[in-house]
Amino acid sequence: MRFAKGHGTGNDFLILADLDDELAMSPDFVARLCDRRTGLGADGILRVAPARGAAPGARWFMDYRNADGSVAEMCGNGIRVFARYLIGHGLAEGPELTVATRAGLRQVREEPDGDFTVDMGAPVVGGRSEATIGTRTYEGLEVSLGNPHLACLVDLPVAELDLSAPPVIDRRRFPEGANVEVVRVHGSGRLDMRVYERGSGATLSCGTGAVAAAVAAAAADPGAAGRWAVAVPGGSLEVTLTATTSLLTGPAVIVAEGVLDEAWLSVPV
Amino acid sequence: MRFAKGHGTGNDFLILADLDDELAMSPDFVARLCDRRTGLGADGILRVAPARGAAPGARWFMDYRNADGSVAEMCGNGIRVFARYLIGHGLAEGPELTVATRAGLRQVREEPDGDFTVDMGAPVVGGRSEATIGTRTYEGLEVSLGNPHLACLVDLPVAELDLSAPPVIDRRRFPEGANVEVVRVHGSGRLDMRVYERGSGATLSCGTGAVAAAVAAAAADPGAAGRWAVAVPGGSLEVTLTATTSLLTGPAVIVAEGVLDEAWLSVPV
Repeated sequence: MRFAKGHGTGNDFLILADLDDELAMSPDFVARLCDRRTGLGADGILRVAPARGAAPGARWFMDYRNADGSVAEMCGNGIRVFARYLIGHGLAEGPELTVATRAGLRQVREEPDGDFTVDMGAPVVGGRSEATIGTRTYEGLEVSLGNPHLACLVDLPVAELDLSAPPVIDRRRFPEGANVEVVRVHGSGRLDMRVYERGSGATLSCGTGAVAAAVAAAAADPGAAGRWAVAVPGGSLEVTLTATTSLLTGPAVIVAEGVLDEAWLSVPV
Repeated sequence: MRFAKGHGTGNDFLILADLDDELAMSPDFVARLCDRRTGLGADGILRVAPARGAAPGARWFMDYRNADGSVAEMCGNGIRVFARYLIGHGLAEGPELTVATRAGLRQVREEPDGDFTVDMGAPVVGGRSEATIGTRTYEGLEVSLGNPHLACLVDLPVAELDLSAPPVIDRRRFPEGANVEVVRVHGSGRLDMRVYERGSGATLSCGTGAVAAAVAAAAADPGAAGRWAVAVPGGSLEVTLTATTSLLTGPAVIVAEGVLDEAWLSVPV
């Protein structure tokens, strides 16, 4: 079984090219692959599978799995790495392509500087609810980018929050759980963000979370421009909010490619 | 550049076959490769390099580097993975082979069940000194297996010790630093061990540390037999202490093999 490893702003992925849609992706198998010591290690897996007929214009479906084996609708860092992989392997032409995801079709474009821009769709803004992180409770804005987020504006440096344990959120508001972002706005169009991702824990970056963070920041400052520079622990992303959609721009890196060992694969899980 | 990833009881390694001894292994390059998010990720690197003339009988030198880029003399889990790689790639015949390390020549044997046994040489027992872990100070036995250890017998479950920060040791006793083991003996010939490795932090296992732990346990119980079952967070190892040497037996797993991406490699570090 062939794999590639890549990352976008430190959010890292294993890419499995399953062009004939044959892989059984059990949660145990995913978790075993994503184990950073006894497997290859990653925040999640991007399986390249054929898009179904219901996805006109999209040749490939991004089957995203969190490191614990759970399914996610969409991954804004992952889809850039996914697009780089497709173009690099001649599976898509570029610079523009359409990718099918569980959150719907997504347009991706390779920029002249090598970054990728993803049309993330229109954020769906919900109500407000709370996240308890350590001993403090923060109010946040519920935002869906296909996957659910609670983006909390905070008044302290985001590095000071302890995200080693999952933030406690209102399960009635988020029956499927949510990613929780802590966001600190720095003047006009700049913010710092950290994230706790359901199923993966604290990661160095989260693409949909960056958009949710910009949406929460914009909601608190109606005069702000649509463009946000989002600093995450793993690098920098750019989010553009328009009247109808949201765009996410950032790097996509392939680190290595290879083949999983047959003996390792054959161990029952 | 080709690589393999493997592990022994959860202590994981990247293997770089540098058969012509051409790789410049700068600390930055090693650290970049071992970064678990933006690189491939591992506790350390095992470079396969030709043994020099000073190593009669050994064809290959195990150039071991910690994840931070520092050099280590020897790695008891790594050498088993190194041996499996050599045999698997036809670089050694097996089941017995000699590997050159910075700590000297080491005999390795593949057992019929697929585990590997390493002759780790005679442990060199030093004096006693202390390690401060969190707010408590523990006395330990200084043991060298080519690399320096302080093995501390403790009276609480080893899982309860906080090894997230480096234990504080006496730098006059260990000018090059040391691995610190916390060891709890369970009756005859069984012990639990956790380790903080200099250069890599808390790992799931440490082969030389398992031997050092057995030496410390045996020193405290002169009537004990020579065989110790050592439970580490990543699995089980067996240590045999004889009058003249120490033997370490445990698994060695190859997870995957592949090639580093040229574009990723070309980024200056």
